[in-house]
Amino acid sequence: MLEQLKKDVYEANMELWNQGMVIYTWGNVSGIDREKNLVVIKPSGVSYETMTAEDMVVVDMDGNVVEGKYKPSSDTATHLILYKKYSDIGGVVHTHSTWAVTFAQAGMDIPAFGTTHADYFYGDIPCTRDLTKEEIEEAYEKNTGVVIVETIGEKNPMEIPGIVVKNHGPFAWGKTPSGAVYNAVVLDKVAEMAYKTMTLNPNVPKVHQYLLDKHYFRKHGVNAYYGQGSEEH
Amino acid sequence: MLEQLKKDVYEANMELWNQGMVIYTWGNVSGIDREKNLVVIKPSGVSYETMTAEDMVVVDMDGNVVEGKYKPSSDTATHLILYKKYSDIGGVVHTHSTWAVTFAQAGMDIPAFGTTHADYFYGDIPCTRDLTKEEIEEAYEKNTGVVIVETIGEKNPMEIPGIVVKNHGPFAWGKTPSGAVYNAVVLDKVAEMAYKTMTLNPNVPKVHQYLLDKHYFRKHGVNAYYGQGSEEH
Amino acid sequence: MLEQLKKDVYEANMELWNQGMVIYTWGNVSGIDREKNLVVIKPSGVSYETMTAEDMVVVDMDGNVVEGKYKPSSDTATHLILYKKYSDIGGVVHTHSTWAVTFAQAGMDIPAFGTTHADYFYGDIPCTRDLTKEEIEEAYEKNTGVVIVETIGEKNPMEIPGIVVKNHGPFAWGKTPSGAVYNAVVLDKVAEMAYKTMTLNPNVPKVHQYLLDKHYFRKHGVNAYYGQGSEEH
Amino acid sequence: MLEQLKKDVYEANMELWNQGMVIYTWGNVSGIDREKNLVVIKPSGVSYETMTAEDMVVVDMDGNVVEGKYKPSSDTATHLILYKKYSDIGGVVHTHSTWAVTFAQAGMDIPAFGTTHADYFYGDIPCTRDLTKEEIEEAYEKNTGVVIVETIGEKNPMEIPGIVVKNHGPFAWGKTPSGAVYNAVVLDKVAEMAYKTMTLNPNVPKVHQYLLDKHYFRKHGVNAYYGQGSEEH
Repeated sequence: MLEQLKKDVYEANMELWNQGMVIYTWGNVSGIDREKNLVVIKPSGVSYETMTAEDMVVVDMDGNVVEGKYKPSSDTATHLILYKKYSDIGGVVHTHSTWAVTFAQAGMDIPAFGTTHADYFYGDIPCTRDLTKEEIEEAYEKNTGVVIVETIGEKNPMEIPGIVVKNHGPFAWGKTPSGAVYNAVVLDKVAEMAYKTMTLNPNVPKVHQYLLDKHYFRKHGVNAYYGQGSEEH
Repeated sequence: MLEQLKKDVYEANMELWNQGMVIYTWGNVSGIDREKNLVVIKPSGVSYETMTAEDMVVVDMDGNVVEGKYKPSSDTATHLILYKKYSDIGGVVHTHSTWAVTFAQAGMDIPAFGTTHADYFYGDIPCTRDLTKEEIEEAYEKNTGVVIVETIGEKNPMEIPGIVVKNHGPFAWGKTPSGAVYNAVVLDKVAEMAYKTMTLNPNVPKVHQYLLDKHYFRKHGVNAYYGQGSEEH
Repeated sequence: MLEQLKKDVYEANMELWNQGMVIYTWGNVSGIDREKNLVVIKPSGVSYETMTAEDMVVVDMDGNVVEGKYKPSSDTATHLILYKKYSDIGGVVHTHSTWAVTFAQAGMDIPAFGTTHADYFYGDIPCTRDLTKEEIEEAYEKNTGVVIVETIGEKNPMEIPGIVVKNHGPFAWGKTPSGAVYNAVVLDKVAEMAYKTMTLNPNVPKVHQYLLDKHYFRKHGVNAYYGQGSEEH
Repeated sequence: MLEQLKKDVYEANMELWNQGMVIYTWGNVSGIDREKNLVVIKPSGVSYETMTAEDMVVVDMDGNVVEGKYKPSSDTATHLILYKKYSDIGGVVHTHSTWAVTFAQAGMDIPAFGTTHADYFYGDIPCTRDLTKEEIEEAYEKNTGVVIVETIGEKNPMEIPGIVVKNHGPFAWGKTPSGAVYNAVVLDKVAEMAYKTMTLNPNVPKVHQYLLDKHYFRKHGVNAYYGQGSEEH
């Protein structure tokens, strides 16, 4: 079942690997079939080098395995919360990519310092609060999703397609599994640029709102003019 | 038309990719035919992995597409300003390479700290001022070119063949499209060296003028003695 | 003799090389046969590019060569101390990987700042004290092992499967030679993340104990639920 | 003439390239035939990708070209001074490798912080003083060699087989051209480790003399016991 989605999710996982976002088994990508309300996700702890599209796991919206010989990613419950809350997203990614983890561990938002950031994220990429001891012990992975949703709050998740979870690492999302990977790669790259900017010039101000507006809306929305007409992720 | 120039511009774009200066579609190279007054430039948002020489776009000096099935780079207007103002340049490059962006986001010139810098740039690589809200809203890409020209000012653009645009990233140029790419790679490398120098020793002075002179003129001008006689970019 | 263990040790050495943990001959992996009380280790100063499984050296628990045409690694005595003291370990690794050496040279523990660390190391990765002049002159490599054991102290070496030796570099261990390499790679990666975290936010606190507990025990022990059931190294 | 030395020098140049020490044409290796008093060196400004052993240039001790279709490296005069002053060296390397240039630009010695350094360099790697305006204008490349020799002073150049020239970059040497490249790679790597150590812990002391002694003499001299008996470069 869901052969095309399995293939898409598999290829998005491999793209994560090929982009250098993960080592060993540290990361996972999922995708959703909105009609059937089923999610396809990477199996837990399976190596990228040997993984095939057939190894992808199908789960329902409660996390029950519907098809697949492996256990799904241990982060499945986080993915499911995001799909339930954000109806426009078609793919979710989690990694431990180094620069994004740096901000997660430092407990800091990734500030919007320039146009590279503004081309994809309409404002700072937030860092969540700590999960409480109770939240962790009760339902860790689910509550990781809950605190992401709490942090995004009133913002449009399609305009801020990623976040860093405090002391943990990044989650990113997009219209498709491959779009989510694209956003995860950009998130790590702008985190790298922000780290280097802040260590070179600790008092640097953020980008002006009007330059942020210009670059974001040059690529997104009805007045976009970058690319050949289908660049949104 | 312009088959050789298209090939040169295509290969210069691929060199940018092979040198690790760009990810995804983040960068563009153009070249000019000074006799015909036509510019060949990378199409907007097209992937380097699949792009061919045939995909290059030909535009006139007002930015109108003369030939090509794609829209030209969204930064075309910036390239055109540089070609109009600097009659000696044959190629222009824009990237979001990480170290150059770091200085752009920090709002700082890249200081000339050593001979690596002096071999190619005769002095600091300047960072532009902010564009105003009006300049951005009126004609963003064109005014990016205007502020570059304003910042270079009385300096010789062939002696300072690149710049960082504040909160954005580097533009570089050269006698040919591949020469412009060469200068863009050097610009990023000397930015990396400058960052590391400044974070190791925050109060370090710049290179002495006489060492800057020695290295620059060892490679450039009538008394150059580096190389086999044709090393200028 | 010990053909399978030689093959395992050889492959673990090559994995160290392929993961970019070593340049030239800077590193070594060993494995132990607990029944025969024999250790297989990389030969000293032999190149990874040309090395074969046949080049591995077999030594007894006193460091005498039992089989092999080469001298064993000059660090053999350190490996032997670790095997004697820690009966659960089956492989030991030493490298000069850059980020771990950074903490060794800085004389600092690698603090547990996040879940990447907590997934594999149950608490800070300690840095040893200085060896004394007498310890170095008397039996340098043996005493390197002694000071590692002193530093681990009452902690469980299977929960802290690695350390940095002051002014020197990391040693890591695991259930198998390849598991030890896995832990050496993780040690270097979490050192990288810790360095970047500390230089971005010098006053950042460590991860909460309850999040450390959650991630460590999600992957280790009787209640582990990450992976498909055999992920411990 | 000197076909074997040309081959050795060519291969050492390519090793420099393969180790990532140079981009474009930024670096050069030479070797000497002590019997004939002739030096073989990389041609100036020739690309590593297309260079062959036949392109190497033979010069006499005054820098006159004895054989070769190209001009020799513009740094030839520096190499010659080192060969004249240090009778034990058989190869010389110059690069603009990033970490070594960082210390050159910062005007700082590379401190001996650990055993990686001590395995190859018996103490700090010095940074030269500035060349004066007169020294630069009179005979820049020759005086670069003179100031290197002045800085090494009474130290044994075989125990400190490299240096950084202020605001410029590293020179390294060794018993052979490939040994010189080895030392140039190590110099850059220990510069990287020192940078990271100093930015993590600015007040860190250097390695104790007795640990420096132990590691240096474990690999060098009559009591060396590392390797299989022929590891000195």
